[in-house]
Amino acid sequence: MKFFSDNAAAVHPKVWDAMKAADAPDAAYDGDALSARLDAAFSQLFGAECAALWVATGTAANCLALAAMVPPHGAAICHREAHIEVDEGGAPGFFTHGAKLLLVDGEGAKITPKGIAALIDPIRDDVHQVQPRAISITQASEYGRVYTPGEVAALGALAKARGLGLHMDGARFANAVASLGCAPAAVTVDAGVSALSFGCVKNGGMNAEALVFFDPELADLTRYRRKRAGHLQSKGRYLAAQILAMLEHDLWLDNARTANAAAQEIAAAAGQRLLHAVEANEIFIRLSPAETAALRAQGFDFYDWPGGAARLVTAWNSDPGHVAALARGIAAL
Amino acid sequence: MKFFSDNAAAVHPKVWDAMKAADAPDAAYDGDALSARLDAAFSQLFGAECAALWVATGTAANCLALAAMVPPHGAAICHREAHIEVDEGGAPGFFTHGAKLLLVDGEGAKITPKGIAALIDPIRDDVHQVQPRAISITQASEYGRVYTPGEVAALGALAKARGLGLHMDGARFANAVASLGCAPAAVTVDAGVSALSFGCVKNGGMNAEALVFFDPELADLTRYRRKRAGHLQSKGRYLAAQILAMLEHDLWLDNARTANAAAQEIAAAAGQRLLHAVEANEIFIRLSPAETAALRAQGFDFYDWPGGAARLVTAWNSDPGHVAALARGIAAL
Amino acid sequence: MKFFSDNAAAVHPKVWDAMKAADAPDAAYDGDALSARLDAAFSQLFGAECAALWVATGTAANCLALAAMVPPHGAAICHREAHIEVDEGGAPGFFTHGAKLLLVDGEGAKITPKGIAALIDPIRDDVHQVQPRAISITQASEYGRVYTPGEVAALGALAKARGLGLHMDGARFANAVASLGCAPAAVTVDAGVSALSFGCVKNGGMNAEALVFFDPELADLTRYRRKRAGHLQSKGRYLAAQILAMLEHDLWLDNARTANAAAQEIAAAAGQRLLHAVEANEIFIRLSPAETAALRAQGFDFYDWPGGAARLVTAWNSDPGHVAALARGIAAL
Amino acid sequence: MKFFSDNAAAVHPKVWDAMKAADAPDAAYDGDALSARLDAAFSQLFGAECAALWVATGTAANCLALAAMVPPHGAAICHREAHIEVDEGGAPGFFTHGAKLLLVDGEGAKITPKGIAALIDPIRDDVHQVQPRAISITQASEYGRVYTPGEVAALGALAKARGLGLHMDGARFANAVASLGCAPAAVTVDAGVSALSFGCVKNGGMNAEALVFFDPELADLTRYRRKRAGHLQSKGRYLAAQILAMLEHDLWLDNARTANAAAQEIAAAAGQRLLHAVEANEIFIRLSPAETAALRAQGFDFYDWPGGAARLVTAWNSDPGHVAALARGIAAL
Repeated sequence: MKFFSDNAAAVHPKVWDAMKAADAPDAAYDGDALSARLDAAFSQLFGAECAALWVATGTAANCLALAAMVPPHGAAICHREAHIEVDEGGAPGFFTHGAKLLLVDGEGAKITPKGIAALIDPIRDDVHQVQPRAISITQASEYGRVYTPGEVAALGALAKARGLGLHMDGARFANAVASLGCAPAAVTVDAGVSALSFGCVKNGGMNAEALVFFDPELADLTRYRRKRAGHLQSKGRYLAAQILAMLEHDLWLDNARTANAAAQEIAAAAGQRLLHAVEANEIFIRLSPAETAALRAQGFDFYDWPGGAARLVTAWNSDPGHVAALARGIAAL
Repeated sequence: MKFFSDNAAAVHPKVWDAMKAADAPDAAYDGDALSARLDAAFSQLFGAECAALWVATGTAANCLALAAMVPPHGAAICHREAHIEVDEGGAPGFFTHGAKLLLVDGEGAKITPKGIAALIDPIRDDVHQVQPRAISITQASEYGRVYTPGEVAALGALAKARGLGLHMDGARFANAVASLGCAPAAVTVDAGVSALSFGCVKNGGMNAEALVFFDPELADLTRYRRKRAGHLQSKGRYLAAQILAMLEHDLWLDNARTANAAAQEIAAAAGQRLLHAVEANEIFIRLSPAETAALRAQGFDFYDWPGGAARLVTAWNSDPGHVAALARGIAAL
Repeated sequence: MKFFSDNAAAVHPKVWDAMKAADAPDAAYDGDALSARLDAAFSQLFGAECAALWVATGTAANCLALAAMVPPHGAAICHREAHIEVDEGGAPGFFTHGAKLLLVDGEGAKITPKGIAALIDPIRDDVHQVQPRAISITQASEYGRVYTPGEVAALGALAKARGLGLHMDGARFANAVASLGCAPAAVTVDAGVSALSFGCVKNGGMNAEALVFFDPELADLTRYRRKRAGHLQSKGRYLAAQILAMLEHDLWLDNARTANAAAQEIAAAAGQRLLHAVEANEIFIRLSPAETAALRAQGFDFYDWPGGAARLVTAWNSDPGHVAALARGIAAL
Repeated sequence: MKFFSDNAAAVHPKVWDAMKAADAPDAAYDGDALSARLDAAFSQLFGAECAALWVATGTAANCLALAAMVPPHGAAICHREAHIEVDEGGAPGFFTHGAKLLLVDGEGAKITPKGIAALIDPIRDDVHQVQPRAISITQASEYGRVYTPGEVAALGALAKARGLGLHMDGARFANAVASLGCAPAAVTVDAGVSALSFGCVKNGGMNAEALVFFDPELADLTRYRRKRAGHLQSKGRYLAAQILAMLEHDLWLDNARTANAAAQEIAAAAGQRLLHAVEANEIFIRLSPAETAALRAQGFDFYDWPGGAARLVTAWNSDPGHVAALARGIAAL
């Protein structure tokens, strides 16, 4: 009974179908008919002109977005526990040719205009100091917390005022939007986001993420950088197919809603054990070593979190029986 | 009737099957059971200890291999028309942090010890000149020519004598081995090759190539670099599945033999038009603009080659009827 | 009356003399007789085999040292206020091709084994996290504090135990050694330091710093990297001359003692205003805006420090009258 | 009797004087009064708005110029024997984060619009191929040949038509202008040059070159990159002093004329031995091994050139007696 992560879940049947349907030969790289549909599909989804590129991983999406906004001598601001800081093996430094990440704290791995201003206000605009050029936020955050439209807009306003780009790591964007119940645009383009890593892999995809630029100019250079990073696959139609399948009939939201609901079921059982409000599909709970062992002995697989805790993640295909069993197991501790 | 490239062909049914069979959740990244089998599978294939990593593209495989052998202040030697020089958007410069490619000429896009020595002998071993650290060859070459075991061994001997690594871009390695009828080891590990980009995508795969190190130490750092380049997919099992399917029952060789045989059929029809001996699955023929137009009018799709020529590529799934039609069409010009 | 920094002070007459004496043509780059003497000169100074390279700036020295120890996918640990983190315009990211700096806190801009261990112990040895590969400390620190031989040795022991290099940014190394009264080896090679940026510019030099490797192997690659960074000057003999002049008859220590003594005179006057113990040639004092203005009105030039404070720096050529006047001025506030 | 290179000659007395005169403390880095005069001094020299930065080496000047014009995924076009290609240890790859140099041939190490067009016309504007973004020429060339105003203007016109920057490596710019007898602007800003590495070191300076941008916007980012490369010296006034001394009363041209005249004296004696027209201060002559040995036996020091030749270089301070002796020695062979 796996609650380790959503990043290794099976591929959704509709995604499989779409991939199979893409099998007929077409032009290579992103010259095929499916890849050509991505810009329009996302423009429709967000109600604004978009340029969308497929890549294989969230790390590639995030880092290409950062590289589009931050020169080598610049910096991006992110939370101290952001995925780009702690889980991407230094990929931002690779893609940006050595730009820095400037770290801020914030409850639930969310950052605020106040925290950012406190960090960057003392930075002199001279050549001795690395100049901030972008903000990167994670939606939902590394602790499963969600930025509201207002919170994103406040960050967007700060970004605009300071001449910074605003990137959203949306590895679990679907879970956030499903949780908020808002229009996708409300927490992105309408709130000042310049680039979004639109996650599919954790939400029923196989190996395709969409890098969506709300400023299409940023996409132009990124096409060169994607190739240069070895990320321009020759059978790109299989990636485009995954993404389009995800968008069709709101599969992306349906999958996220299922995962979120499972998380709520577990959260309700966890009660006071919760370390963070459960707003998406991740649950962080306090567990003693004995309790951890007890759950494991019942067949539950999950990730130990530093400080006597556990991270439990639900997915689009979490078995309802397993979820109910986990909820009972936690309640019974 | 597509003879444009083998790089956008459909995925082989056995590869599809293997991918579907990998759908059950397993550990993420390369921690799954399939990924864990790669080292052994290639060690068996080559009769020598190997470390093998999946990546999504040949560019990533090639450039990670180069980065493992060439420091930023070094250089790799390759043919002037090598894929890494002319078709990878500068990816070698990205992955190696700015190392150079030193170019040699050679018939059929193949390079020789003599050509390499003439290039590097005048390079002084001082800090003013970029020091060669590796040789990279393409098997089969960009003109569909094949290095014999003896030719590779001669390059391997030179590499060893000069302290250079030897990389083989094997995007069409299967076609070369099928053509040579030799043991895979004879043109690789036994001939001094240190790293091989073992191509699957052009041979019936979807988006998985194997980067095979015959010097396993080189693989250790490469695992970090793969992650740092955004190439460590979380559902890596789908890539491992493709590669293992390719190796099982010699599917890789069967597919290549089919493509090669189709190329031979076309080559026989082309006769004196051939610009290069056809040894794998690429055919380069002289065509006047009128002849080009005539073939296109018959429904054949192919790549114009500079200098009044055309490149025709067969694939594992080239339709026998299309192949025969093309042969007839060329013969009738 | 300038107490802004020691980094723009005049060049010491003996350094001028040595540069003039180097005017006769000799071999270019570092092929001249003076450059050839550097290794031996430092080996004698430290009583251990050294390899020493001149460079023009402390930033170049620091970053070449880091690049010698830290691969692009690695990290160096330093204090949150270290010069390499906050004052070098991202140069470490440039020279290391994107490696990270991991930041620790510590009183007086000094770091401790305990602080470092707390930072790196949670880092898993896997490809997802950036791996620490070196520690960098500043001697004297950015707050003019000095690491004792025992403190450096404790850091050296930790570095050795964890397989990390240990770099010392010695922009004010002379002031630290003069303050400690110890053998130069006691706070460097004997304590586990692998590379030292031996500062001259702030201590009466013009534009030469020595990068001293106690592990000569690290110097070999660095010679290539120095050239590649545009730091191999063709008339290198003028840099070597500066450094050798500094070492002759302990000019480096004499100059530092003079600066340190001036700092003590000011520190004595500052009394309770001191924010940090004065152990080298920097004095940090609390000053209200009115007091700041009063000192400026008396003709004193210095750097405002965040939080209602001032940084005062003495140099080898601080005018004794100015020093006395400043001491009186502060005492009279 | 040294004719090895001009790059290790003594420093001109007027340069020494200017450096000494700069000894009084001033603001650090490039905040001093002398550095502040550079823009105006070069704007006057070229009759056009310039932004000028000092750096320590020609390699740094060249590579910062390239980095200002060429993105990491782009390329600069230069002669196959250009200094940036063969003598800078891969520095262009470092400063540009891996951009390529595309090589053209040309007599006398000079390149032509025709040669460049033949190289770049076949390059498709797609992500698979590295896109040219700048041309770099050397004035005087690596074989001591000079581009006329018309030749530079033709390159400038091509650059403008193709959207390329035009960089001039002017390590021996003074010798070229002295040879041409033209206005400095005629072979630079008026001919379409965007950035000039204005050499001083080979012409009587110690360790300062001026990087002159005729497009001041390019200078803005370069100031950050200079710092990031460790090239922002804290006592920058000593570099500015060298450059300003060079410009005062046309010292730069006087020195170059002296060196050029010495070269002409030797060239006249060499007659049919000359491999290249002598237009600046370098002489390339055919020499048999016996002749080489004979000249060396007479005390002449010079550089062997591949193919049975020698390179002789005169400098601002070449001893007239040595020059006459060399001329006699060559004539007597």
